[in-house]
Amino acid sequence: MPDPCVDVLVASYLEQDLVERIARSDPRVRVAYAPELLPCPRWPSDHVGVPRELTADEHDRWTSMLHTADVMFDFDWRHPDRTLEQSPNLKWIQATSAGAGQLVEKFGLSSAPLTVTTAAGVHADPLAEFALAGILHFARGLPRLVADRHTRTWRKQETTELAGRHALIVGAGKIGSRTAELLRCFAVTSTGVARTPRPACAPFDATTTTDRIAEHLPTADILVISCALTDATRGLIGPRELDALPRGALVVNLGRGPIIDEDALAEALSTGRVGGAVLDVTTTEPLREDSPLWTADNVLLSPHSAANVPSENGKIVDLFVENLGRYLSGESALINEFDFDAGY
Amino acid sequence: MPDPCVDVLVASYLEQDLVERIARSDPRVRVAYAPELLPCPRWPSDHVGVPRELTADEHDRWTSMLHTADVMFDFDWRHPDRTLEQSPNLKWIQATSAGAGQLVEKFGLSSAPLTVTTAAGVHADPLAEFALAGILHFARGLPRLVADRHTRTWRKQETTELAGRHALIVGAGKIGSRTAELLRCFAVTSTGVARTPRPACAPFDATTTTDRIAEHLPTADILVISCALTDATRGLIGPRELDALPRGALVVNLGRGPIIDEDALAEALSTGRVGGAVLDVTTTEPLREDSPLWTADNVLLSPHSAANVPSENGKIVDLFVENLGRYLSGESALINEFDFDAGY
Repeated sequence: MPDPCVDVLVASYLEQDLVERIARSDPRVRVAYAPELLPCPRWPSDHVGVPRELTADEHDRWTSMLHTADVMFDFDWRHPDRTLEQSPNLKWIQATSAGAGQLVEKFGLSSAPLTVTTAAGVHADPLAEFALAGILHFARGLPRLVADRHTRTWRKQETTELAGRHALIVGAGKIGSRTAELLRCFAVTSTGVARTPRPACAPFDATTTTDRIAEHLPTADILVISCALTDATRGLIGPRELDALPRGALVVNLGRGPIIDEDALAEALSTGRVGGAVLDVTTTEPLREDSPLWTADNVLLSPHSAANVPSENGKIVDLFVENLGRYLSGESALINEFDFDAGY
Repeated sequence: MPDPCVDVLVASYLEQDLVERIARSDPRVRVAYAPELLPCPRWPSDHVGVPRELTADEHDRWTSMLHTADVMFDFDWRHPDRTLEQSPNLKWIQATSAGAGQLVEKFGLSSAPLTVTTAAGVHADPLAEFALAGILHFARGLPRLVADRHTRTWRKQETTELAGRHALIVGAGKIGSRTAELLRCFAVTSTGVARTPRPACAPFDATTTTDRIAEHLPTADILVISCALTDATRGLIGPRELDALPRGALVVNLGRGPIIDEDALAEALSTGRVGGAVLDVTTTEPLREDSPLWTADNVLLSPHSAANVPSENGKIVDLFVENLGRYLSGESALINEFDFDAGY
């Protein structure tokens, strides 16, 4: 008689109550979780953390846990590239990030008989909040207010406003849609850019496809990048595209650094061609030491952690528990299944 | 036969097309506008401006314009306290600010047989945008991001988020309502505080009255002041009220400085009791030179100009033209009539 149970290995730090929520979600679920064998999180939802040296005994325990796993919550932190040999029973990995393309490729899992689901959607709220924080920061002249306080200067002046502007949002997925939704509250219209044609519908006022963005750049007061990094989006925004934006436009990158030509962006920021950049991602991370972005006062730079908020783990576990139910019933497709062909 | 015309004196700077919009609004309207006799605006919607020295001839011209006026767009910039003697025909002043209480009192107009209408509502959008800019600035850790860029530090960490918080909004007028509406987009609930009881309705999740705010302070992650300065609101938020807020709460003042005890606020900011303050107004303006707020890094200080955006004059003129139509027809009450008893 086959074992009716499913062995779930929680392979990154989770708060204890969340581990219990997974364990209690179905009687067939058997959870393995040993935080002492995992990298030490710098904050609760840190899924990278500070690596540990494992003793020989700890190494054996971790190896054994990997060996038994049918399902993993997050990738193995030590040898993700050896996942298939280490975990012969493994059928599904639930990733904790929205963009898993680079990981899957790096770990050589793209041809594996394995399901990978992403955490797409979980980060939409905090990333869209960050986008708005950054857009408002520049649109409402906050850098000058901060500078004036430092010099004890009381200087009234006019600033631009958000209402009435237009945004071009490259990537009409959950992050882009939530950003458009928030912008719409501020009376900012938006055009959503998807890979394939789709009808215009809320929260976007219009939609277009990636190959036609050139037509839309001249009216983009705000350019938001919220798409995955694929062969089609690498270097999508170069000098020509930046030059086509209205003078003083704002550029927001919530996707991946290499989608924007970073040298061209730095140049456009230095001349004021681009008025401000709100970046959660850069081409190399950490940002390379000699990057001119470090000293550009019209850059708001976040070290790829704008999605790190207290509610993150709870939302990923909500998604995982829903997926686990579907996995056990075998009746419906998992949410956020990674598409190895599309790369996201 | 009485003169069917109404003499409208535009007494602060307006763009030429807006002056024409007033002039063309009704054949009975006769507009007097001489920008060369007005203070020089520092930005288009600057209704204070840099005063001019008038020559004897210019003085006479201005005196004559004041003498003829039936209606004024904005107060006389030179001797508003002599309005009644200077302008014997004057029946109505359209103010360009939302809060006219201090002006009316200062100019001794409170017992005048005069209608004053305010520009309440015009500034709701830009002020609410500014409130959100400031709230997001602190909630999403932007001061640290800016500091880290300056020191070339790439330091991932978690920040708080807006979603799921609760705001107490003192002043349920247009500015407070628009702020609540924007906060609601970010999944922030709110309680609106009005002078007199009113049913809870959108954009507020609940309502209460000014005399009961003490009960609501302990759940106010964000306290927004968007009410008028009156005897009932002067010093409304003192040390006790600040101490009742959750630790690290954010305080926003879009109303008037004296509504908050500024020394108590500075003290609460220095201990972290209050996590951040977003101030468009201060007790004395400019902020007094020895104020500890100048050096408080958890203060975002705006020199009472958060409402100054390019669309401002257009919106005030929209309101004025609507009011002018009502004035001429005599059929309906003017919008935003100042209530001399209530003080707003």
